[in-house]
Amino acid sequence: MRLLNLFILFLFVTISFSQEKWKSLIDEDLNNWEIKQGKAQFKLENGVIYAESILESPSTYLGTKKAYDDFILEFEVFVDTGLNSGVQFRSAINTSVPEHSRVFGYQFELDTNENRAWSGGIYDQSRKNFFLYPVTRNEKGRKSFKNGQWNKARIEAVGNSIRTWINGIQVTNLIDPLSSSGFIALQIHNISESKDVGKKVMWRNIKILTENLSEQRNKVEEYATEINNVDNQLSENQIINGWRFLWDGKTTKGWRGAKMSKFPEHGWEIKNNVLTVLSSNGKESENGGDIVTNKKFKNFELELDFKISEGANSGIKYFVDTYLNKGAGSSIGLEYQILDDKNHLDANKKFKVYEYSNKSWVLHKEDIKKNRSMGSLYDLIEAENLNEERSKRPVHPETWHRARIIVNEGHVEHWLDNIKLLEYNRFSQVFKALVEYSKYSKWENFGQLDSGHILLQDHGDRVSFKNIKIREF
Amino acid sequence: MRLLNLFILFLFVTISFSQEKWKSLIDEDLNNWEIKQGKAQFKLENGVIYAESILESPSTYLGTKKAYDDFILEFEVFVDTGLNSGVQFRSAINTSVPEHSRVFGYQFELDTNENRAWSGGIYDQSRKNFFLYPVTRNEKGRKSFKNGQWNKARIEAVGNSIRTWINGIQVTNLIDPLSSSGFIALQIHNISESKDVGKKVMWRNIKILTENLSEQRNKVEEYATEINNVDNQLSENQIINGWRFLWDGKTTKGWRGAKMSKFPEHGWEIKNNVLTVLSSNGKESENGGDIVTNKKFKNFELELDFKISEGANSGIKYFVDTYLNKGAGSSIGLEYQILDDKNHLDANKKFKVYEYSNKSWVLHKEDIKKNRSMGSLYDLIEAENLNEERSKRPVHPETWHRARIIVNEGHVEHWLDNIKLLEYNRFSQVFKALVEYSKYSKWENFGQLDSGHILLQDHGDRVSFKNIKIREF
Repeated sequence: MRLLNLFILFLFVTISFSQEKWKSLIDEDLNNWEIKQGKAQFKLENGVIYAESILESPSTYLGTKKAYDDFILEFEVFVDTGLNSGVQFRSAINTSVPEHSRVFGYQFELDTNENRAWSGGIYDQSRKNFFLYPVTRNEKGRKSFKNGQWNKARIEAVGNSIRTWINGIQVTNLIDPLSSSGFIALQIHNISESKDVGKKVMWRNIKILTENLSEQRNKVEEYATEINNVDNQLSENQIINGWRFLWDGKTTKGWRGAKMSKFPEHGWEIKNNVLTVLSSNGKESENGGDIVTNKKFKNFELELDFKISEGANSGIKYFVDTYLNKGAGSSIGLEYQILDDKNHLDANKKFKVYEYSNKSWVLHKEDIKKNRSMGSLYDLIEAENLNEERSKRPVHPETWHRARIIVNEGHVEHWLDNIKLLEYNRFSQVFKALVEYSKYSKWENFGQLDSGHILLQDHGDRVSFKNIKIREF
Repeated sequence: MRLLNLFILFLFVTISFSQEKWKSLIDEDLNNWEIKQGKAQFKLENGVIYAESILESPSTYLGTKKAYDDFILEFEVFVDTGLNSGVQFRSAINTSVPEHSRVFGYQFELDTNENRAWSGGIYDQSRKNFFLYPVTRNEKGRKSFKNGQWNKARIEAVGNSIRTWINGIQVTNLIDPLSSSGFIALQIHNISESKDVGKKVMWRNIKILTENLSEQRNKVEEYATEINNVDNQLSENQIINGWRFLWDGKTTKGWRGAKMSKFPEHGWEIKNNVLTVLSSNGKESENGGDIVTNKKFKNFELELDFKISEGANSGIKYFVDTYLNKGAGSSIGLEYQILDDKNHLDANKKFKVYEYSNKSWVLHKEDIKKNRSMGSLYDLIEAENLNEERSKRPVHPETWHRARIIVNEGHVEHWLDNIKLLEYNRFSQVFKALVEYSKYSKWENFGQLDSGHILLQDHGDRVSFKNIKIREF
């Protein structure tokens, strides 16, 4: 009994001690805050900060005057259903861009769309303009935010480790080096329809902790998949889970030309931990040629970052048999297509089919195939966006994007920037029926290999690769 | 206690009584048996009848001189691995056919091929020449026969109910009206390779029961799926499981023209419980036109028997929307193709694909598609034989065959004569990708309906249908 009393006392002291360090960001007025952008009004009433949607304004941000680097932030928020909102952190102002997009930086997403349900995810506002952590790989996290009520939120930003919680459920676990410091800001999103005028977002109990952070961090939950955006570095968690680099960032070790026993002597460049296939004006495998891993892979998860040049065509192939096509052109395998959809005709390929009937060739159909677009299973399955209703996010030239391929026996998935694009079973009858219609019908047992090489394609266009990593299972 | 004693006594008396009625078919010699066909030698030694494979002989049968109608037969059998054998029952001799195929009738299959493993199945020897009960819908039954050992077999033939067991596991449950009486015969199969010369089949403890059969029958196991081959009649088991006739065999009730509000006035014939689409020289939907069920179906199992004329083309469509194609041609839906593969060009359709590249049309591929063959999902998935390695059994003109379609939400299966031909998920991404390549790409959301009509196609060729039945779930 005495020991228990002592323990309760200890708990009490510990809690009191740590609570002393929390600092409220809401005083009697909003003097510590300022409008960073936009025309909407923020008001403080009975400890609640609120704002209403207005037409004809960009998103409006009420931000702290002070900048914060490492911190743990907690707040409660109520978002009227139909609105989108967010809380910026480590954010800043970029005066060189149009006024409506000057506030940039990490955004803790507030998403009342129940189909997507990415609240707590991390959006890179007005910089990369995409989700650094869309909540696509954490189903439990997706269900943490409740519409029509107050929700408790928590952001931990310590070094490059950013983690978020909603109502006690961990939503994200991001390692990202983009911003180390900046203001915190409450967003009231711009709206385009008058039906949304007057809809409200409310915040209360906003408090921050800036000292002794490491001992105040929450336990990390396994269901909140970690996403690591740091170059040339595996996280502790990745090492534990069997990830390793498939390319060392410096040498040609582990790779060879697809049709040679060693690495091509020209056509490929290694510089600053980036591997680049050089341009030869779009010729397929005529310059350096494709490169493949020496090793063959069976069940694996492959992740790499790639950057295209304008109009570029390339690809990542898997289950490649380098003995199959000894002639001209690329080696044969399943291909995660890399393409500049906007500037390459392959993204909308016109084709015509004739059938032989009554002793003559009759036009059967004329159509456009989209199964050669970015992220598609080349010539077979068109990349979609399986995680939200909107069309898939475009890949822009000269920006880095992340490809991910998962193979588990027959089951295969293609991902782009943490969005699932497609999935199929390569052993299914319907997959084999699809192959019969495609350009691959001439290769017997296409896609059916037990194991195969991984290939990076030389399609004669400049494309760069980095952070090529893999784990096998 | 007294009651238990009484019960044990009762059991003892019952067992003794029934065992008295079993009659051995093996005496001191083989005087009750005779060779019905073939040149192999059967010998009797220590109660074991055995024979060895020889070259240059048709299958040899040692049969009972006596004919049996209703009976329960039990025997033990040992088959050298690599051989195929069987036990004929209710069999007879047809002297009007070549000598090697004169013995015809039901055969209890003995199959040492472990990939197929259809021992205990019922083959219709030298008559229909296919399995009336292939062991494709009873996985437990498939595993009952053991190679390299003696196996205990049991056949119950009572009226049109035929059931078999191996080592206590029920293998078949067939209702079939083809033969009601005939001899029992042991088969030593013909062989074609000298490596099989001298391989043995042995039988022992062959005994038969011919009286009080109904009280001696084994309990029916649910895992041994019942197959009913009786025309215009649902079995008790089928009624319990929700089967009903989708066509009453006599009137046009429940059906209408696909593009009309009533049944076509010509082009279709109803006679002797058979529904026939008449010939109009191969024109698609220009005579009577397709017919559809008035009702729409969502999740169902459909079974019907069909008979083609030479060179015929027809089909069973499901998830049909009769509002979709109001113009010429057939209504739109997923189609179980009915075709005379041997005599219709559609079974091996030549096609060419051109792609638009560098401002001109370039020949991309020239190929043959087999996805319009018998049982295929028309223009999409080629029918295979998923239950054994051999190619699918041909459908012959003027013979009855059974089609079966199962739909459970996205999952669909096509069966022919109790052999699974194909399966797919109509909601999968890869199925939609396949549709994009097919002639159906112009119909939005093809195959995605929540429910639809069932259609019998008028493709201008004479094709008959009977026993059209369905159960919904």
